[in-house]
Amino acid sequence: MLSGGRLPRRVRVVEVGPRDGLQNERAILSAGAKVAFIRRLAASGLPAIEAGAFVRPDRVPQMADSDEVFRALADLRGPVLSALVPNRRGMERALACGAREVAVFTAASEAFARRNINMSIADSLASFREVLSLARAHGCRVRAYVSTAWWCPYAGRIAPDAVLRVASALIEMGCYEVSLADTIGAATPGEVSALLERLGREMPAGGLAVHFHDTRGTALANVLASLLCGVATVDAAAGGLGGCPYAPGAAGNLATEDLLYMLHGLGIETGVDLEAVAVASRSLGDALGHPLPSRYLAAGPLRAGRAAGDAGAV
Amino acid sequence: MLSGGRLPRRVRVVEVGPRDGLQNERAILSAGAKVAFIRRLAASGLPAIEAGAFVRPDRVPQMADSDEVFRALADLRGPVLSALVPNRRGMERALACGAREVAVFTAASEAFARRNINMSIADSLASFREVLSLARAHGCRVRAYVSTAWWCPYAGRIAPDAVLRVASALIEMGCYEVSLADTIGAATPGEVSALLERLGREMPAGGLAVHFHDTRGTALANVLASLLCGVATVDAAAGGLGGCPYAPGAAGNLATEDLLYMLHGLGIETGVDLEAVAVASRSLGDALGHPLPSRYLAAGPLRAGRAAGDAGAV
Repeated sequence: MLSGGRLPRRVRVVEVGPRDGLQNERAILSAGAKVAFIRRLAASGLPAIEAGAFVRPDRVPQMADSDEVFRALADLRGPVLSALVPNRRGMERALACGAREVAVFTAASEAFARRNINMSIADSLASFREVLSLARAHGCRVRAYVSTAWWCPYAGRIAPDAVLRVASALIEMGCYEVSLADTIGAATPGEVSALLERLGREMPAGGLAVHFHDTRGTALANVLASLLCGVATVDAAAGGLGGCPYAPGAAGNLATEDLLYMLHGLGIETGVDLEAVAVASRSLGDALGHPLPSRYLAAGPLRAGRAAGDAGAV
Repeated sequence: MLSGGRLPRRVRVVEVGPRDGLQNERAILSAGAKVAFIRRLAASGLPAIEAGAFVRPDRVPQMADSDEVFRALADLRGPVLSALVPNRRGMERALACGAREVAVFTAASEAFARRNINMSIADSLASFREVLSLARAHGCRVRAYVSTAWWCPYAGRIAPDAVLRVASALIEMGCYEVSLADTIGAATPGEVSALLERLGREMPAGGLAVHFHDTRGTALANVLASLLCGVATVDAAAGGLGGCPYAPGAAGNLATEDLLYMLHGLGIETGVDLEAVAVASRSLGDALGHPLPSRYLAAGPLRAGRAAGDAGAV
C-alpha cells in the first residue's frame, strides 16, 4: 500500500534534459539557446542540472559547446550544474570551466560497455580513478551512471549481481551516488524492486538514484516501485527530451513534468515549480523539430471550472 | 515491495478501444472498419471487448452504427462483447442485437453527472433499474462506470465517500462490477490507493475495476497501485485510442499494449497476445489522422542483438 509512511518525504530531482536530453536529439541547439534553457530550468528550483558533456565533439556534436555553456553560466546561483566526463581529459575541461560536479558512465553489461564506450567494464572503472583523484583534489563531486541496469540491447536481461559488482566498485572508489539507468526503457516494476532490494541490502542507503526511460510507458510505474524501495533521487529530462537511440521514433527520458506531477500528487516535496519547468520546455518551441513527449505538457495543469464534455464521457 | 505475492496472479483486461476509444476520436470509422478491428482484437485473446454504444446518434455519431457492428459480429467466439447503454431504450437496442453484456455510466461528481448525462446521480441510478430488470430477464450482465472517481473538471477533488455511495448502490442494484474511471487523467497513486482501500473495506472483493487515463502520464503507475490493492480488472484501449475531451491534444485512455507490457513483465497472466493487439492497432493505420499515443507501439518489442548506439548513451 502507499500509506503508512513508506514513501520518502522528499525527492531530489536531477534534471538531465540539457545533456542526456539534448544529446539524443537530432537538432543541435546553439550555446545561447542552451544557456537560456538552463537558466529557465534553474528558475524552477531544480537542485541539480546536468548541463553538458566534455566528450569528443566529433562523436557528440550536440555537446561540442559545453565549455562555452559552462562559462556562460558561471554566475548561476541555485542548482549544482554537472557535466558528463568520460575520462581525465574530459575532467580537466570540466574543471577548467568551473564545474563542481561531474558524472562518469559505465554499464552493467559487458557487451554494452564494449559497444558504447569501447572498453570492458573493468577498464572503464580503472579509467575513472584518474577522474576521482582530480575530483578529490578540486573538491568536485563525482556521480556515476550504470547503464543497462536491467536490460541490454545486445545481451538481454542483466543479472542483479552484475549491477551490484559495478555499483559497489563505483561507491568504493569515491563516487557519491550511482544512478541506475534503464537504457532501453524495458524494465518493469517487479524487476526494479528486485534489483533495488538486492542493492539496498549491500550498499549504503542514499547512494542510489534511478534513471528511467519511458520507451514502453513504464517509467513512472518504475519510479513508484523505486520510491517504495526507499530511493529518493530520480533523474528526468524536461519535456521528455531525448529519444531512444535504440528505437528510432520512440520515447526516451522520463519527462520531468510528468515525474513532478506524480511526486507532488503523492505529497512528496521536491522544491521544484512544475509550471516553471513546463515554461522552460515550451521555450524550446520549434527548435527541436518535433513535439515533446511529455504527457503533462500536452494536457496542461488541472483547471476546475468550465470544460468541454461529451455524452457518455467515462 | 512488489515481492511476496502481493500482486494478482491474473488480470482481466477489458478492451474499450472500439467504444471509449473510437467515441473520443475525431475520425468516424465505417462499420466495416470497426468490425475488422474488433475481429483482430478478438484474435489476440482479449476476454472482454466494449464494441459499441447504443446512444443517440446525433450526440455520438461515432457510435451510430453500433447495431450493424454487433449484428456483423454475431458469429464471433472468444471475447464477451459489451455495449454502453444509457437507459432502457439503449438496452432494448442492445438486446435486439444479441449483446450479452452492457455497461451503464454515471459519476461520483454531481456537477459532472448534470453536465455529462443531464441528470443527478440519484436520477441516473433510478434510470438504471429498468436496464437491470431487462438484463436479468435476458441473462445479460451489467457493468457500471463511475466517472470522476478522483477528480472532476468542474468540482475538483472528489471525496472517497461520494464514490463509495454510488459504487455501493450500483452493486446493490445488481451490477456485477464497477469500473472506477479517472476521467480527466489527474489521479496519482496515493489517491488511487486511498480510494481502493476505502472501497475494499466495504464492498465485495472482485467487484472493482479501474479505468485510467494517461493524460498526465500517471495511468500505469495508478494501475500498479491498484494491483497492490488487489484490483484484478483493468480497462485499456488498443493503441491508446481516444483523446481527452477535457484537454484537446492530450492523451486519453491507457494503451492496452503499454498495460500488457507492464503486466507481463510483472509475471501476471492475462491470456492476451501483446503483439496481436499491436497488429490490430496498427491496422487502423492512417484512418485516425494522427499517430496513436501508445509508447509500446512507437518502440516495438525487445530485440536482443545488433542495435544502433551512441557514445555516452545512458
